[in-house]
Amino acid sequence: MSDDRATRLPDSRVQPRFAGVCSFGRWPVLGEDGPCDWAVLGVPFDGGVTYRPGCRFGPRAIREQSQYLKHYSIEHSIDVPGSLRLADAGDAPVRPFDVEQTLTSVRVHAASLADRAERLLMLGGDHSIAFAGMMHAWERSGRPAGGLACIHFDSHLDTIDTVWGEQWNHATPFRRLIEAGALDPKRMISLGIKGPLNSADDLEYARDHGIEILGHDASLARGPDRLREFVSRLAGGPVYLSFDIDCIDPAYAPGTGTPCVGGFTSAEALMLIRACAGANIVGADVVEVLPDRDVAGNTALLAAHVAFEILACDAVRRRDKRDSGPA
Amino acid sequence: MSDDRATRLPDSRVQPRFAGVCSFGRWPVLGEDGPCDWAVLGVPFDGGVTYRPGCRFGPRAIREQSQYLKHYSIEHSIDVPGSLRLADAGDAPVRPFDVEQTLTSVRVHAASLADRAERLLMLGGDHSIAFAGMMHAWERSGRPAGGLACIHFDSHLDTIDTVWGEQWNHATPFRRLIEAGALDPKRMISLGIKGPLNSADDLEYARDHGIEILGHDASLARGPDRLREFVSRLAGGPVYLSFDIDCIDPAYAPGTGTPCVGGFTSAEALMLIRACAGANIVGADVVEVLPDRDVAGNTALLAAHVAFEILACDAVRRRDKRDSGPA
Amino acid sequence: MSDDRATRLPDSRVQPRFAGVCSFGRWPVLGEDGPCDWAVLGVPFDGGVTYRPGCRFGPRAIREQSQYLKHYSIEHSIDVPGSLRLADAGDAPVRPFDVEQTLTSVRVHAASLADRAERLLMLGGDHSIAFAGMMHAWERSGRPAGGLACIHFDSHLDTIDTVWGEQWNHATPFRRLIEAGALDPKRMISLGIKGPLNSADDLEYARDHGIEILGHDASLARGPDRLREFVSRLAGGPVYLSFDIDCIDPAYAPGTGTPCVGGFTSAEALMLIRACAGANIVGADVVEVLPDRDVAGNTALLAAHVAFEILACDAVRRRDKRDSGPA
Amino acid sequence: MSDDRATRLPDSRVQPRFAGVCSFGRWPVLGEDGPCDWAVLGVPFDGGVTYRPGCRFGPRAIREQSQYLKHYSIEHSIDVPGSLRLADAGDAPVRPFDVEQTLTSVRVHAASLADRAERLLMLGGDHSIAFAGMMHAWERSGRPAGGLACIHFDSHLDTIDTVWGEQWNHATPFRRLIEAGALDPKRMISLGIKGPLNSADDLEYARDHGIEILGHDASLARGPDRLREFVSRLAGGPVYLSFDIDCIDPAYAPGTGTPCVGGFTSAEALMLIRACAGANIVGADVVEVLPDRDVAGNTALLAAHVAFEILACDAVRRRDKRDSGPA
Amino acid sequence: MSDDRATRLPDSRVQPRFAGVCSFGRWPVLGEDGPCDWAVLGVPFDGGVTYRPGCRFGPRAIREQSQYLKHYSIEHSIDVPGSLRLADAGDAPVRPFDVEQTLTSVRVHAASLADRAERLLMLGGDHSIAFAGMMHAWERSGRPAGGLACIHFDSHLDTIDTVWGEQWNHATPFRRLIEAGALDPKRMISLGIKGPLNSADDLEYARDHGIEILGHDASLARGPDRLREFVSRLAGGPVYLSFDIDCIDPAYAPGTGTPCVGGFTSAEALMLIRACAGANIVGADVVEVLPDRDVAGNTALLAAHVAFEILACDAVRRRDKRDSGPA
Amino acid sequence: MSDDRATRLPDSRVQPRFAGVCSFGRWPVLGEDGPCDWAVLGVPFDGGVTYRPGCRFGPRAIREQSQYLKHYSIEHSIDVPGSLRLADAGDAPVRPFDVEQTLTSVRVHAASLADRAERLLMLGGDHSIAFAGMMHAWERSGRPAGGLACIHFDSHLDTIDTVWGEQWNHATPFRRLIEAGALDPKRMISLGIKGPLNSADDLEYARDHGIEILGHDASLARGPDRLREFVSRLAGGPVYLSFDIDCIDPAYAPGTGTPCVGGFTSAEALMLIRACAGANIVGADVVEVLPDRDVAGNTALLAAHVAFEILACDAVRRRDKRDSGPA
Repeated sequence: MSDDRATRLPDSRVQPRFAGVCSFGRWPVLGEDGPCDWAVLGVPFDGGVTYRPGCRFGPRAIREQSQYLKHYSIEHSIDVPGSLRLADAGDAPVRPFDVEQTLTSVRVHAASLADRAERLLMLGGDHSIAFAGMMHAWERSGRPAGGLACIHFDSHLDTIDTVWGEQWNHATPFRRLIEAGALDPKRMISLGIKGPLNSADDLEYARDHGIEILGHDASLARGPDRLREFVSRLAGGPVYLSFDIDCIDPAYAPGTGTPCVGGFTSAEALMLIRACAGANIVGADVVEVLPDRDVAGNTALLAAHVAFEILACDAVRRRDKRDSGPA
Repeated sequence: MSDDRATRLPDSRVQPRFAGVCSFGRWPVLGEDGPCDWAVLGVPFDGGVTYRPGCRFGPRAIREQSQYLKHYSIEHSIDVPGSLRLADAGDAPVRPFDVEQTLTSVRVHAASLADRAERLLMLGGDHSIAFAGMMHAWERSGRPAGGLACIHFDSHLDTIDTVWGEQWNHATPFRRLIEAGALDPKRMISLGIKGPLNSADDLEYARDHGIEILGHDASLARGPDRLREFVSRLAGGPVYLSFDIDCIDPAYAPGTGTPCVGGFTSAEALMLIRACAGANIVGADVVEVLPDRDVAGNTALLAAHVAFEILACDAVRRRDKRDSGPA
Repeated sequence: MSDDRATRLPDSRVQPRFAGVCSFGRWPVLGEDGPCDWAVLGVPFDGGVTYRPGCRFGPRAIREQSQYLKHYSIEHSIDVPGSLRLADAGDAPVRPFDVEQTLTSVRVHAASLADRAERLLMLGGDHSIAFAGMMHAWERSGRPAGGLACIHFDSHLDTIDTVWGEQWNHATPFRRLIEAGALDPKRMISLGIKGPLNSADDLEYARDHGIEILGHDASLARGPDRLREFVSRLAGGPVYLSFDIDCIDPAYAPGTGTPCVGGFTSAEALMLIRACAGANIVGADVVEVLPDRDVAGNTALLAAHVAFEILACDAVRRRDKRDSGPA
Repeated sequence: MSDDRATRLPDSRVQPRFAGVCSFGRWPVLGEDGPCDWAVLGVPFDGGVTYRPGCRFGPRAIREQSQYLKHYSIEHSIDVPGSLRLADAGDAPVRPFDVEQTLTSVRVHAASLADRAERLLMLGGDHSIAFAGMMHAWERSGRPAGGLACIHFDSHLDTIDTVWGEQWNHATPFRRLIEAGALDPKRMISLGIKGPLNSADDLEYARDHGIEILGHDASLARGPDRLREFVSRLAGGPVYLSFDIDCIDPAYAPGTGTPCVGGFTSAEALMLIRACAGANIVGADVVEVLPDRDVAGNTALLAAHVAFEILACDAVRRRDKRDSGPA
Repeated sequence: MSDDRATRLPDSRVQPRFAGVCSFGRWPVLGEDGPCDWAVLGVPFDGGVTYRPGCRFGPRAIREQSQYLKHYSIEHSIDVPGSLRLADAGDAPVRPFDVEQTLTSVRVHAASLADRAERLLMLGGDHSIAFAGMMHAWERSGRPAGGLACIHFDSHLDTIDTVWGEQWNHATPFRRLIEAGALDPKRMISLGIKGPLNSADDLEYARDHGIEILGHDASLARGPDRLREFVSRLAGGPVYLSFDIDCIDPAYAPGTGTPCVGGFTSAEALMLIRACAGANIVGADVVEVLPDRDVAGNTALLAAHVAFEILACDAVRRRDKRDSGPA
Repeated sequence: MSDDRATRLPDSRVQPRFAGVCSFGRWPVLGEDGPCDWAVLGVPFDGGVTYRPGCRFGPRAIREQSQYLKHYSIEHSIDVPGSLRLADAGDAPVRPFDVEQTLTSVRVHAASLADRAERLLMLGGDHSIAFAGMMHAWERSGRPAGGLACIHFDSHLDTIDTVWGEQWNHATPFRRLIEAGALDPKRMISLGIKGPLNSADDLEYARDHGIEILGHDASLARGPDRLREFVSRLAGGPVYLSFDIDCIDPAYAPGTGTPCVGGFTSAEALMLIRACAGANIVGADVVEVLPDRDVAGNTALLAAHVAFEILACDAVRRRDKRDSGPA
């Protein structure tokens, strides 16, 4: 691959990984270095949580832990920042007291970055921001009829209608997206869903709309094959990937607001993401990282690697495309 | 004093302090044991914070640490639960996504407790709840013209007008109370105020309205005398006491959302509260305890003792009144 | 199922999960709501430990973390508090300086609850309390000859004779129960036992008496099948389930007094408990939760879910019984 | 001073302070280097606590933090291990389930060290062990009639009669010592006592027997002068010093079982101990260090320095004695 | 004052304090906004420590905590970033394995910033970097004969000759600076020095060269007056201020490598710095912040405020100068 | 087996596991009890790290957690200290500022122990010390031509040439050992290697020299069989085992300097080590334990068990040898 596709990174011989103002993965700040393929965009917002707040500090913590991200994926045999132009777009403007205003503000801001960043990976923040992330990706993809496909990692379905009379919060984004036409529930797969739930009714909406649900055991037993098949059927069509860190067991990811025991190990989660290699991911988010509960920093470190692995899937797609290009 | 003024407490010989469902100070739950002089009422709400959230878990943490509260104040030579009928009123209903609705909800709930609890000490929750606490106390006192006097411990003035366009949050309660007529700024004293502030303008509203501000050094040098004089001038008139735990140095109270270095030690803070002995405190709050940052539980433990010392001031008043009663 | 079998729970729309005085799972306090099928009973006692004390604070911590327990088990497709009448019986009286007196005190107290609570799940406290729990269950079951069957999760056998000359401690309960006739070692299965042990002799008592021991690897390889078979052979006969949280790896459960590396993940442990569905569990305990070491609260959270899954096994049994009832 | 009075210490040029098996202050293990003036003796016991256990791990934690102890006291202008022969006597044998047996065991063990260690400073462990420490010091001093004088730092009086029917625990040692004739209450001074207490009665025993009580404020205002006067009146007679770390504020010493807000800062505590310079301290203890709550290790570090400062008082006495010796 | 002297800061209405890539105090990155009066420069280096390493992460942690720094100093009645042009210069290049090479590298880098930043405040990193900071300030001041005056806050003297045969480490910077002629020991004052020391010899070098040493008690009793007098005698001459966070008690600043009990409270330290108002500080450092030990982030927060207060001293000087300017 | 092959251990009936000065596993200090088969030797050094320092405190932390090590391995049915003479050799002398000098110093010290300790297991310290450990083992084995075989557990290859221009650090030991002739890369197997790496080039050296690399998934799928085969092919020839704790997932081992998500669980790691049973391990190390990040002590506890399991492999070898000895 040629240099012009690569991300300019600091020389570790001069600036060790523990030095310097933290951008995600030590990438250039958006705008410093021309348009990019992917930018991370922090959304420091937790106004939509129903239990433990604090994930407004998530983007900052993920940036700090991302300093130890390296470049080369052994599993995919690819140098990710060597294959993609990457940038850190900083944090979106938020309205800390209002979910709906925040979602609008984030969407407006995301749109304003469009000529500098082809695709966005949002770092939460609570899961309510997935609405902004997916709406942006859908609009940026030309608002395909039926909405985007979606790969969703979570302990919870997040398809509730209202909580405390409020439609906009971290338990409802996928319902709102389906209502908005941006998400096609029949091409949505949710992995890591696990009990206990509030009630049996919670499953109904998902089932009625055709969302495919893989519980924890099923995700491990059938997930990788099912994901490869899912990606294959998309045939290069656009898909959004939403990763709620609470699908990971609290032993690995204590820093989250609604921790669920019996979750994935980090190795299992990375293995599942890698099974999405080649998907045409047009937008993504990694959400619900709550630093004040993250006693050893592991959750934020894992979130940084999850973001890396998502981007690696796209790096693989681009490589495969080049490799199979016209002779 | 006679037994009928005392709080019924569990026998520590049967139920050690580390056992049992936690009510504040191991007091009876409101209603179990007849009307009471004071009830604590938790307000698990942090929708009004501007920096670090999480104090919705404050009431729970304070209750837990309050299990080691004992009865007898050496400094005042008085047995507090032996002199006052005390109860735990549980937590008020809140609307986690809305400050204004929460304040209304708390006020309605507080009013509903009126025939069972003469006075309320609210456990926050963020400082926005002081609006509900003081409005209730003012109304319960018959809405005296000019409003209540107020003794205020804090690092911040909390008399801002709006933050992010929002009038209701933890930086504004005293401005809203003055506007509502419930608080008399000319009989308000703020102790522990310290820099840095956002700007010099922050001081103007307070000064224009006649609030007496004692900075950190002045609070220590002149605070006790000034408080005794302040209480003396009230001549038994009603006063509200609002205690923001962030007036304490973060070494002593790390568990708070906007920590300010250079604050009081716990010994200094207790000494200042004790200087209010004899005041006719008709309502009080202890706010901004954020358990997720409270690495050793000290903040919640201190908050429980602050509540105890506030009540001790009232116990002293009642004793003095009895002692000086008709022969 | 009809409403009269369901537990009355607070309305989360009024009282969020972070609000209110903590009862286990937000269940009613025993007595508030009529007799119940199961009550949890805390036993805040750690006078029997041989290494790290502090699990006297276990019941309190488990109650706090249990606030996020939900109702519906996806895996069993059952609403647990919707199928069982549940209550929190508070904590048993203990004698902190004396194991034997405490066991007597807990048994007397448990007996006094008999007409209000059909079955008890005890929250430890150290493992010495299993003696009280199982003696009570045995007596309540009419002291069946030969003793109760037992499903035992642990890293340790807990069948030692004496430690420091003392017969009553957390390493000896099952030996004492066998001696008392309450436990049938030939129908006891211990899962998760792992090395290193103090000596090879520790295994002899268990082997001589016919206890079936599954080490860590065997538990995972053969545990679910073996448990289903075990339950099936019981044919509805009474069984006691004792769960020592130290069978879980310290990565998942750091808050315990004798942590053993190489233990179960939380997903593995839940899967094993679920394999007991349908067993006629007449008493249970979840022990050795030590909050001062539980850096992120994960251990107590997991303990709450372990208790939930144990009860789910009984909910399944009752459903199956109803479903196969007389036409 | 001559070399034969000095403690042999490792060469920091070879063995940095972060290296090596930890003996207290890096001193020789007792017996390695001839008889000593003072030995520290750990008593890893917490069977006498009434609230939070875990101080059985105190001696180990204090040893670890003591590695950063240095030699020279600026305040007294004296090199402490250069003036005293010091050693670490390891830990006394204990009976973890029994206070009384442990006290006997510790006394027997202390007596067995008598020809190798002139005086002992015990590291707790809970305060119940002060009985063993002071009985040993009294016996070693020839059982002077009336008992020893005592300087006592604590938040609590520790002169209760019984707790849960048990006479031997950490709330009772000084009552037991007075009853045994080893402690003269009329020459006992307690500093740092503070409220709240369980009841007013707790003060009576102390007052009836003539113990001088200095509350927190009085300790700071008059403590140093009062201590110098107290030491002066002893005129070289033997005195025991007992230091309960909970007299220190939990901001400085979170690692203790019954933390009391409003306590001494570390600077205040050291200043008070230094006021005892020249006293003929014949035995001492530093107790109630609970590592599992000591989030940053500060409590154990402070305990090591408290021990150092106590020994410095004796080093000063010996220097003064030499300086004023026969010409 | 006119706008052209003020620092451009983000609008908190758009970018809350918990949002965005962290520059110190949310100041512009050096170069974004023209030349500045002061720049902070991180030196992420801990190759010179003798006990606990990790302060290479200090600059990053201080930047994070500095997000809550505000503008207006009540005590000096001055808006600091409103009176000074401030910038964050990022981190200097370091050589993690070599003290001497690092010092050279930092000095070369500092020199390269000279036309953009008039003065530098370095954020450590260990105290060895003070050599680079003061050499730079001295050279930038035109290498005045006799060297610079120095105000030094520390528990330690840092005038040792060698440790483990090495001249360059965190115990030696002031000795090296005196040897280099950059520091005038006769105009150096060290506050907060406290025992115990390694040996009495440690004091000799300082005394022989005329450094004024104020121990902990003397610093509090006489420090403010002495500092005002010291500044006054300088008569506007250049002075360097070096602040080792370990002069603060570990209760307030646990995050440091060689913690010393009995240190300053944060209020005391800030009061002492404020006594330097008006000094012509030509360079400064705040060193020895070790985030891995900083359990609640208090140390880094305090370090940020210490830096703010140092700059406030210079803001006051410039204001006084303007106020007394030509009519 | 006869007693003369057993390690003398303290009587737990007198000295509980929480008591006494800590030697590794409570073993005798080297020299107290005659020559031994294996000694652990601490190397408290972290001068070779490239990211997070602090593992100089590793040996001390591992010793403390090792107090709960027991004797009997269920999995191998062997009493390890009953089959091997074990001792704690304390810590090697180090030069904290210099990797190369430290390696020399450790080698000289190790050689000096040769007549007291047949084999050494070094406790790090950072991975740079593996050079000293393996050089010693190689020399002690008579410097076999081609070098020793090696079993290597790690996330990283540690075969880099230089970092920041320095050849001696924790990323380079195996390259230096191959250059020195002490290590035969063709008989080296590295397990747990995982991405991301700095670059694809990092793999080349290893591949060019014939090191067998098993990534994370391959290690689990094929590791046990591959290790048994590897050991079998060695046919009793000498092998060195180097265990970098960062091959373990940070959920299990947060206390390390370069944590890598997606690592082994502790059960998986122990299973892999056990597959080496019977190997003629002539030297070993367990490195990169960083206590300041080890929030619950799990990493050090696991490191102690890893050391135990390594020794168990040798105990099995000796038993098998005896069992197959001449009749």
